[in-house]
Amino acid sequence: MAVTDFPPRSATALLDRYGEVRAHTEALAGPLTAEDQVVQSMPDVSPTKWHRAHTTWFFETFVLVPHAPGYEVVHPGYDYLFNSYYEQLGPRHPRPERGLISRPSTAEVATYRSGVDGAVRDLLTTVDDHALADVAALIEIGLHHEQQHQELLVMDAKHVLSRNPLRPTYGPAGVPAEPGPAPTSSGPAGWVDIDGGIVDVGHGGDGFAFDNEGPRHRELVEPFRLADRLVTNGEWLAFMDDGGYRRPELWLSDGWAAVQQGHWSAPLYWEPDGERWALFTLHGLQPVAPAAPVTHVSFLEADAFARWAGARLPTEAEWEVAATTADGLVQLDDSVWQWTASPYRPYPGFRPAAGALGEYNGKFMCNQMVLRGGSFVTPAGHTRPTYRNFFPPPARWAFTGVRLAADA
Amino acid sequence: MAVTDFPPRSATALLDRYGEVRAHTEALAGPLTAEDQVVQSMPDVSPTKWHRAHTTWFFETFVLVPHAPGYEVVHPGYDYLFNSYYEQLGPRHPRPERGLISRPSTAEVATYRSGVDGAVRDLLTTVDDHALADVAALIEIGLHHEQQHQELLVMDAKHVLSRNPLRPTYGPAGVPAEPGPAPTSSGPAGWVDIDGGIVDVGHGGDGFAFDNEGPRHRELVEPFRLADRLVTNGEWLAFMDDGGYRRPELWLSDGWAAVQQGHWSAPLYWEPDGERWALFTLHGLQPVAPAAPVTHVSFLEADAFARWAGARLPTEAEWEVAATTADGLVQLDDSVWQWTASPYRPYPGFRPAAGALGEYNGKFMCNQMVLRGGSFVTPAGHTRPTYRNFFPPPARWAFTGVRLAADA
Amino acid sequence: MAVTDFPPRSATALLDRYGEVRAHTEALAGPLTAEDQVVQSMPDVSPTKWHRAHTTWFFETFVLVPHAPGYEVVHPGYDYLFNSYYEQLGPRHPRPERGLISRPSTAEVATYRSGVDGAVRDLLTTVDDHALADVAALIEIGLHHEQQHQELLVMDAKHVLSRNPLRPTYGPAGVPAEPGPAPTSSGPAGWVDIDGGIVDVGHGGDGFAFDNEGPRHRELVEPFRLADRLVTNGEWLAFMDDGGYRRPELWLSDGWAAVQQGHWSAPLYWEPDGERWALFTLHGLQPVAPAAPVTHVSFLEADAFARWAGARLPTEAEWEVAATTADGLVQLDDSVWQWTASPYRPYPGFRPAAGALGEYNGKFMCNQMVLRGGSFVTPAGHTRPTYRNFFPPPARWAFTGVRLAADA
Amino acid sequence: MAVTDFPPRSATALLDRYGEVRAHTEALAGPLTAEDQVVQSMPDVSPTKWHRAHTTWFFETFVLVPHAPGYEVVHPGYDYLFNSYYEQLGPRHPRPERGLISRPSTAEVATYRSGVDGAVRDLLTTVDDHALADVAALIEIGLHHEQQHQELLVMDAKHVLSRNPLRPTYGPAGVPAEPGPAPTSSGPAGWVDIDGGIVDVGHGGDGFAFDNEGPRHRELVEPFRLADRLVTNGEWLAFMDDGGYRRPELWLSDGWAAVQQGHWSAPLYWEPDGERWALFTLHGLQPVAPAAPVTHVSFLEADAFARWAGARLPTEAEWEVAATTADGLVQLDDSVWQWTASPYRPYPGFRPAAGALGEYNGKFMCNQMVLRGGSFVTPAGHTRPTYRNFFPPPARWAFTGVRLAADA
Repeated sequence: MAVTDFPPRSATALLDRYGEVRAHTEALAGPLTAEDQVVQSMPDVSPTKWHRAHTTWFFETFVLVPHAPGYEVVHPGYDYLFNSYYEQLGPRHPRPERGLISRPSTAEVATYRSGVDGAVRDLLTTVDDHALADVAALIEIGLHHEQQHQELLVMDAKHVLSRNPLRPTYGPAGVPAEPGPAPTSSGPAGWVDIDGGIVDVGHGGDGFAFDNEGPRHRELVEPFRLADRLVTNGEWLAFMDDGGYRRPELWLSDGWAAVQQGHWSAPLYWEPDGERWALFTLHGLQPVAPAAPVTHVSFLEADAFARWAGARLPTEAEWEVAATTADGLVQLDDSVWQWTASPYRPYPGFRPAAGALGEYNGKFMCNQMVLRGGSFVTPAGHTRPTYRNFFPPPARWAFTGVRLAADA
Repeated sequence: MAVTDFPPRSATALLDRYGEVRAHTEALAGPLTAEDQVVQSMPDVSPTKWHRAHTTWFFETFVLVPHAPGYEVVHPGYDYLFNSYYEQLGPRHPRPERGLISRPSTAEVATYRSGVDGAVRDLLTTVDDHALADVAALIEIGLHHEQQHQELLVMDAKHVLSRNPLRPTYGPAGVPAEPGPAPTSSGPAGWVDIDGGIVDVGHGGDGFAFDNEGPRHRELVEPFRLADRLVTNGEWLAFMDDGGYRRPELWLSDGWAAVQQGHWSAPLYWEPDGERWALFTLHGLQPVAPAAPVTHVSFLEADAFARWAGARLPTEAEWEVAATTADGLVQLDDSVWQWTASPYRPYPGFRPAAGALGEYNGKFMCNQMVLRGGSFVTPAGHTRPTYRNFFPPPARWAFTGVRLAADA
Repeated sequence: MAVTDFPPRSATALLDRYGEVRAHTEALAGPLTAEDQVVQSMPDVSPTKWHRAHTTWFFETFVLVPHAPGYEVVHPGYDYLFNSYYEQLGPRHPRPERGLISRPSTAEVATYRSGVDGAVRDLLTTVDDHALADVAALIEIGLHHEQQHQELLVMDAKHVLSRNPLRPTYGPAGVPAEPGPAPTSSGPAGWVDIDGGIVDVGHGGDGFAFDNEGPRHRELVEPFRLADRLVTNGEWLAFMDDGGYRRPELWLSDGWAAVQQGHWSAPLYWEPDGERWALFTLHGLQPVAPAAPVTHVSFLEADAFARWAGARLPTEAEWEVAATTADGLVQLDDSVWQWTASPYRPYPGFRPAAGALGEYNGKFMCNQMVLRGGSFVTPAGHTRPTYRNFFPPPARWAFTGVRLAADA
Repeated sequence: MAVTDFPPRSATALLDRYGEVRAHTEALAGPLTAEDQVVQSMPDVSPTKWHRAHTTWFFETFVLVPHAPGYEVVHPGYDYLFNSYYEQLGPRHPRPERGLISRPSTAEVATYRSGVDGAVRDLLTTVDDHALADVAALIEIGLHHEQQHQELLVMDAKHVLSRNPLRPTYGPAGVPAEPGPAPTSSGPAGWVDIDGGIVDVGHGGDGFAFDNEGPRHRELVEPFRLADRLVTNGEWLAFMDDGGYRRPELWLSDGWAAVQQGHWSAPLYWEPDGERWALFTLHGLQPVAPAAPVTHVSFLEADAFARWAGARLPTEAEWEVAATTADGLVQLDDSVWQWTASPYRPYPGFRPAAGALGEYNGKFMCNQMVLRGGSFVTPAGHTRPTYRNFFPPPARWAFTGVRLAADA
């Protein structure tokens, strides 16, 4: 993970930001009981408690151990338990077994968090100017990393709660409202026309970016059109009513297999409610709102929908060009992530960072599709137009949606 | 489940006993954290919280709903969540998904327990003499049922904790000590000779018994000998040192398959500790004590061990005859359960009770082996010489051990 | 495998018998194409070609290699390919992969068979009187072993053909007709009353028997009744019409799980044919004949049927006593095998033979149920009243049926 | 599948070509026994017999049924058995069960082939000029389709034979020799420098092409270098000796998982032979030849190798530009297929054909990587520089290899 032109900032300002981000994680976990925080509902999901501990381990491992003189790790077993996937840091607890770990308790994890927070604070108030830039760069990465886990924490907890037949709510307060209609969603989506050409794509300027957003490079984009808003639940219902989940000719082969094996007949979390549909939200079961953007659909479904609609998904270069040049697009990064037609692959000239942090992004560049934008759960300021999110084609538990494109 | 000659007792005495048994469950759960009580470490294991709720549901369903006028269930969803396996009571939550249920919380389960306890108390203080016998019989069953779950709760929680690489302890206090040596274990086990003949087997007299213990019936038993004590860890180490887990000729075909697929090289919970072996106990990792009885061995291992020792396992009829007629046997019911050579099948003339309670025992009479005796976790007074415990041949997480037999 | 009181016989007579048995195997394989003989339709099924080779390997390994001076094995790789389950003879080809072996071809297997046959003939014509008894005993075992595989060959080939949507026939000729009605099947089955007492069970006299049939020993049998004929298809249809496959209270827990997971709604090989049922036979798809005995039912189904009928299955001791003492029983050993209520366990005092042949029977004495009698495919003279066949409780592809019993 | 500018040709010339292609399939199947042709060694593999029948079904379904007046299908069941994946043509036999179908026999499949061949001949000699172009276009597709299956037939049969512990050979004659060294492979590979620019990619001119090769479109390619020959076994051995299969930092996450789950330590079909390595070929087990191109490596391995070598894989656009513009490249299409860095996705403006033939290529455009070139088994004249082959990232049983690229 490379940090491009990281702006030097004062230790005090950094500490303030550190405190805010760390507190936001705790606020998101706040409505969840100790019991909620232990459960792992599928191998892709991690327990809330694990997210809280893993983000802490990240600071301990990459900031404190190498840079804080005399620092001693809080518990020698945490390195094994809370390493997510860094092969170069040694053996680690199997991901599908994260839900078997009742201890450390949520209270002990809170202690772990405050212990590391204290040590980071001590480090930042004592580090000399010479080392500050390095430490600050690592903390900046750790904070962006923690923001990613904030969104994962919410979507994972939603999945955990959804498996409970009592249909519990995440909480009446403390969690964001799921997105409502776009201002323009009362009528059909409009098309925004965008010129093509040789364009620069990827991050290249100042400010933080993840390594997978660069290098900035040239791409040839032909003229195209992009929908001004996201696909709505109402439009998805029309697709369903037209036999969308029963017509193999609309689907990729992997998609049709997923429909049959997974018995898909609607987005994830939708369930029949008499003659209508309801969906499970962070605030409990609610009627499907036709004008709200559809979410919890996989790439495979997004692709089938686009084919049914006589359109296509945008490439990630198209999306990025539009997001940085076009007027009139709404729901760009505050509603749900938008599947693109682009497999997640390295940009030309991509080189991961040396050491364990080099495993952060690059090694997942296979069998995943890129999403662009951001969601209502994404922490404010976390994403950029060059930001590349990614999930496997069948994944549905993230806050994912669809924006259509077409040839000009 | 039939209750034979249930002695009428006063409502007050029954209430006292009810309070004691219910309190013992809570005492066993006491050392476990809220997080510990949620985890399900394999499909055969149930979370502590589930045991606490299920035993409560049993009283609610079989005592309060049919017999307490005006009783309203605590929560309409609990019937689905906390029914274990009673097909006749409608759909229920899949067993392998018990670990996904974070709510009701442990606190809510405690509330559920106290609510039902209050209603049972009210019922017993207001029931007329005419109905008392029926209600008392059902409560008696419920208490024996809860005692069974007390042992399951401990062995399940031990399994949960064992999967945690931090090797937590169940608790310094509040749980029984795992069994130590028999008084006679300093030398080789002695043989007790027992006459054969046509004997009466099974429960037939006064007092409570489960339906699978009857009818009392005749069996022909040839003269045999039974070891006066259980097989020890030291004897098991000799089996291991002699290649016991590497010699297919000692094993049933299913046993050898289990050895290879499960990579068995010692009893469950044993792990190498340098040159020696340690075992995971309710009180943490401890050195293997050679004179203590071996435990956490499957029927398949017990069978192989007996073959290696030039002996065999007793039949359940032999065990019962010996337990009721022979002197000189130790560790009969206070140490670990003893595998027999007998598949778990109905006694001649067995008829399960009508209704859902008829599913209690009879429907499991296939592919299980009978164990006799009792363990150090079995509640005092819970078992009898006619008591039939049963587990599948490869099961190892119960407190199971071995007593050898031989032809006379 | 012990041979009790094997009668010395002339080498010539033995050779005649050898030739007959070996030729019968080839006759059974005759209607099958080379392609038919390669396929393995499930792990429990072996390809026809494999049966032909394995029975040959048995003679090569247990008779020729130890007893024929200068004998050289036909192919060094066959020991690995055609050992079924003898752990003491070294590594062997995994059972579920028998269908991957296209070579040796069926023609090469025929050559293998004739080569071994020639060597056995040479051995028997040159062996001195001193060694004849030993060799003859081993050949006798080999012939009984081959007869067992003759039945397996037919039932396995039937399963292979059944998986082909073209519904091919085994052959118009060369295979036995599936069983028709019993003489007495026009009305309800009659009960034959049988006295109890202390009886001798198991093989103890002259003539060949497998080791698992002994030792002969005493058992106590209470008075009981046995149906004079087998359960018919018509009676099974009544069970089905009465919701037999939809009522959990009729089933063992393992049985109900099998019904649901296997989507059982009729015996194996039955399929709807408009308003009626058809069944797949060795001679193609045929209408279900109401008076013919039901077959291809598992123990789990037999047990449920008996419960529905208000009866039970006989124990194997009861069956044996009746078969040797009672008049009026039909379809004892020439129709379909009869499930008993008895798990397959060793008789008191059972000791398997030394060496690899000791693995023949004893090591399977776990999680299997005993069947008694014989089927229309069983070679004439192969079975005895003491003969113990066995299959796991859910197995359905053998020619299995049901005879009911009841308490007197 | 679109045919671009298909040149009208005489019926006679087409018939000659038809005869040649069809005969080549039979020649490839010639060395295989009837038994060899039935086996399916893994779900991705199809039996030889199935390939022979499926390619015949293709002509029957897409040419004869719609265009040959009065044509009656050879067998009504073949439509179910030999449809590969055309959802729009109705239900079909499950792919993993193709190895269960012993009938039709290989002889019946030969009859099927000759019957269809005769009907095609009749059709072509009687079709009027008006309809000839349509029929000829469909036959052309069928012949290219059959050529694809010729290569699949060989690679599938190789996999089948490889699973046999007897290590049989495909045949001493009748199958091509696996590729030997490139002329230039005695020293290190050389780099060929290629200019970038806006280039036209994809098929756009005359002659047959599959639909996935178009539309021809513009792409921006930066200057790059391409290895003049393929990676050799000797270079792969150096990768292995340097711990290539034991160093997670070289691998994509999916790759490292495959290494561990599949116990990969060398390419498929390599096995230790004392101190050296041997590999299983169409002609039996042979020593690894250091100068020959490595084959049977997955994309995941190719990617790790390129990283280890300090290079990368070419994109498919780069490969195509080089193949059509650069001098000095050897082993382009006659040795082994070459993995590219490009996921298999539709070209801009891609539209699959209407009807069932539209399923030919487009629906697989997910989770596959593109390979370019051709192999020693690819029928002469079958491929083009625009030809897009594709397999999933972990696939190893195709004749796949590696050509390295680098930034200029």
